[in-house]
Amino acid sequence: MDQATKGELGTFKSHAGTSGRPARYLERGNFMAKKETALIVGAGQGLSASLARLFAAEGMNIAIAARNTGKLSDLCNETGAKSYTCDAVDAVQVDTLFAAVTADICEPDIVVYNASNRARGPVQDLDPEAVRTAIEISCFGGFLVAQAAAKQMIARNSGTILLTGASASVKGYPNSSSFAMGKFGLRGLAQSLARELQPQNIHVAHFVIDGGVLQGPGDSRASERGEDAMLLPDEIARDYLHVHRQHRSSWTWEIELRPWVEKF
Amino acid sequence: MDQATKGELGTFKSHAGTSGRPARYLERGNFMAKKETALIVGAGQGLSASLARLFAAEGMNIAIAARNTGKLSDLCNETGAKSYTCDAVDAVQVDTLFAAVTADICEPDIVVYNASNRARGPVQDLDPEAVRTAIEISCFGGFLVAQAAAKQMIARNSGTILLTGASASVKGYPNSSSFAMGKFGLRGLAQSLARELQPQNIHVAHFVIDGGVLQGPGDSRASERGEDAMLLPDEIARDYLHVHRQHRSSWTWEIELRPWVEKF
Amino acid sequence: MDQATKGELGTFKSHAGTSGRPARYLERGNFMAKKETALIVGAGQGLSASLARLFAAEGMNIAIAARNTGKLSDLCNETGAKSYTCDAVDAVQVDTLFAAVTADICEPDIVVYNASNRARGPVQDLDPEAVRTAIEISCFGGFLVAQAAAKQMIARNSGTILLTGASASVKGYPNSSSFAMGKFGLRGLAQSLARELQPQNIHVAHFVIDGGVLQGPGDSRASERGEDAMLLPDEIARDYLHVHRQHRSSWTWEIELRPWVEKF
Amino acid sequence: MDQATKGELGTFKSHAGTSGRPARYLERGNFMAKKETALIVGAGQGLSASLARLFAAEGMNIAIAARNTGKLSDLCNETGAKSYTCDAVDAVQVDTLFAAVTADICEPDIVVYNASNRARGPVQDLDPEAVRTAIEISCFGGFLVAQAAAKQMIARNSGTILLTGASASVKGYPNSSSFAMGKFGLRGLAQSLARELQPQNIHVAHFVIDGGVLQGPGDSRASERGEDAMLLPDEIARDYLHVHRQHRSSWTWEIELRPWVEKF
Repeated sequence: MDQATKGELGTFKSHAGTSGRPARYLERGNFMAKKETALIVGAGQGLSASLARLFAAEGMNIAIAARNTGKLSDLCNETGAKSYTCDAVDAVQVDTLFAAVTADICEPDIVVYNASNRARGPVQDLDPEAVRTAIEISCFGGFLVAQAAAKQMIARNSGTILLTGASASVKGYPNSSSFAMGKFGLRGLAQSLARELQPQNIHVAHFVIDGGVLQGPGDSRASERGEDAMLLPDEIARDYLHVHRQHRSSWTWEIELRPWVEKF
Repeated sequence: MDQATKGELGTFKSHAGTSGRPARYLERGNFMAKKETALIVGAGQGLSASLARLFAAEGMNIAIAARNTGKLSDLCNETGAKSYTCDAVDAVQVDTLFAAVTADICEPDIVVYNASNRARGPVQDLDPEAVRTAIEISCFGGFLVAQAAAKQMIARNSGTILLTGASASVKGYPNSSSFAMGKFGLRGLAQSLARELQPQNIHVAHFVIDGGVLQGPGDSRASERGEDAMLLPDEIARDYLHVHRQHRSSWTWEIELRPWVEKF
Repeated sequence: MDQATKGELGTFKSHAGTSGRPARYLERGNFMAKKETALIVGAGQGLSASLARLFAAEGMNIAIAARNTGKLSDLCNETGAKSYTCDAVDAVQVDTLFAAVTADICEPDIVVYNASNRARGPVQDLDPEAVRTAIEISCFGGFLVAQAAAKQMIARNSGTILLTGASASVKGYPNSSSFAMGKFGLRGLAQSLARELQPQNIHVAHFVIDGGVLQGPGDSRASERGEDAMLLPDEIARDYLHVHRQHRSSWTWEIELRPWVEKF
Repeated sequence: MDQATKGELGTFKSHAGTSGRPARYLERGNFMAKKETALIVGAGQGLSASLARLFAAEGMNIAIAARNTGKLSDLCNETGAKSYTCDAVDAVQVDTLFAAVTADICEPDIVVYNASNRARGPVQDLDPEAVRTAIEISCFGGFLVAQAAAKQMIARNSGTILLTGASASVKGYPNSSSFAMGKFGLRGLAQSLARELQPQNIHVAHFVIDGGVLQGPGDSRASERGEDAMLLPDEIARDYLHVHRQHRSSWTWEIELRPWVEKF
């Protein structure tokens, strides 16, 4: 698709001038409007599933990628998503993923990195290889996915990259050094890329999810912690969508979210 | 309206349980649904006007308060708002304002503090009384308004208090010490009250507006700084509304907003 | 004293070039070296007394200022300090203080602001006037003292201004909104002035004292909290001195200090 | 030397009670006092050399480790340091290093991690393997060294671990995503370990070196940037020493340092 065509279709966050609402809003009802495509990397039962459902309900095409896609068939049936097997810390697999999504659906307009990993325990007990893996999954995989997304988005001059953080992104907890490294590192990536890509009309944002995310009706932590102590992933997903739809005249690069009884 | 009645109508951010969307969304179509009331303190041509317009468009009753209400008649006509004269650094006037809004319309569901003041210049040139006034308007007035709002909201067990910050809320710029004190102080208020009132179902949030806000078509800074260098207040207002409507399972206490060509 | 003379005496943080240690160190043994003068505002039994003792032991002249100087006679006898009565939120009294110290001793080389105040309790119970006073003492008084110091130091092209913060400077605690405003505000002042005055060879720094400071042998909190749960003010004072003596090639504007069993 | 003997000699940051200065100060003049040992990992011409010189001048034994030790012979001659070849991202080599230093000299009392690496350029141009290496050297290597240090220090119940950060530790710059990840990650490690090890009497601290460090008389940046635009490494080293000697009643986990003409 050439530039002129894209312009006619009203790409997102386009150069519509400062005088009005972004083109994507004006053209929402337009039957010619290009359907958005979302790629969610690191899919599971919690936030990734809620994102897939909300984005699908908003009319987007959905691609979901995970190391194991076996458990994703129900979600794919429900949302019309296509699933992809991908180890996000392998640059070749990430490139293959983007090529496949682009061939099967479209270049993604919105890319979410939602994978993380940690080695728990006091520093003296941690296995170095487990720590290396934790940093790679939480941080380096985010880089590879963001880089592949940025390559497409820079050429298009539009797009959104959303990275999922945690309490550990802004506070280094004891006995959690591997998670602190991975999550601080991912936040550094987000801030660097937000500064770097904002002038190229690409919106990079980071979400500090400060609390436990309800993993479905069977989540035993909900009864232990009491009502209102956990984040509902459907509600978190609304913030991801909101940030994606922010106009370029009023962008955020970070939002902290927590349930109302969370200490912070 | 007594507590029981309010409960039946589904007040905002109510105890609806963790299993679904907040009551206020479910009942939006309900003809019995209580209409929300917004009070905006510190009204001007920029953000306050955009907030009044957006909140009115969303069906809210609007009250706007300022030291000088002379310029507000067009906005009142456009949005159906009632205007009130109030010096926000005077505790008696703030109490009178809340009593009047409550009598005229309703206890406000959402209160925005949007006033600020500064004495510009190098520290050695500043007039101490001008600095004292700047701190009072930017920070102490926010306290008085938040306190009056909290008194009503604690009794009701619901409500939203939104405080407007600036770049100076998180970075102390040279030759801007009075603004740094006022805006850092207001952010301290916001964070303290967010922690204090969250368990009482009151949502306190702070907005770091990191850049110049377009003050209307005649704003000469827009042509000087170039397209996309200023925040559009209509777009900022969307974020205030979004935060107000966050579910209590997924709240933020702060969002930074900037235009896409702002250095940060 | 004219500029040339000051240069010969080796003023502090002078333009000694990048090739060596600052002049003040080289000339410490010089019998002509000017004796430093420290002014400590907000004197009490804890940190202010420790600062007076350490600075006196380092050979400085000491001036201490407080609203009530009645309790300061022992400290004056011990350290050779002169005491001054001053209400730091009154601009005239602050100017008078600096004039008196300058006449009695010398323009101060190092000025410490150590006063603070708070109104405790949930927001709905706070007396607005008590909150106004708290903000003025914690923050506006710091401005007045820093301004008076800066006027002298800018003319001299040297000097150090040290502002005492607390946990509340960086975290807004519930039921502590007045302290959050005052202490966040003071930190904003510190950061603004650090940026503004650094190019004029004036070192502004802020100390986040994150924990209880032992107020002397009779402090009942020490036995309640257990050994090592409180900051020893003599040890805090060492950090103030260290920061004062940092070379201008390697300055900090902020240090957080806490005892080893403090949660943070 | 067994534990009992070490206790008698007054190890550093010992349980001396809250009533006085730490044992290490009182016993400085004691001819039996154990000589401290410092291990500096990531040695070069700038900060590492200054640390070696200052620590040696303070009477410490010095061990320096680098991937290439060829250039270190002059520094070893000057400071009496022993040099060790070590690739800090290899867990086996790090363990070997600590075993060798312990056998040759003593368990180190103070361990500094000073290595970092970056892949420069816009995100779309970066080689993924170079980014992976940059994260490993800046962050994972710091973990391995801190872990090896912690294992010894936990058993001894004393010790200091100092990690060197940069501007990029707290601000993600454009075209510098690899450095942002590595340095944010190292800061996360520092904060996590500070919280975790503080109750075990181990002092972990992080230094945000916000500016260019003069690399010796031949450093061409000094003339380009002007006098006072660069940090003198000898002055930075004084802060490392100061933090090491902080009493456990008044510890910091982080200091930012910058030259007086640095923008921040």
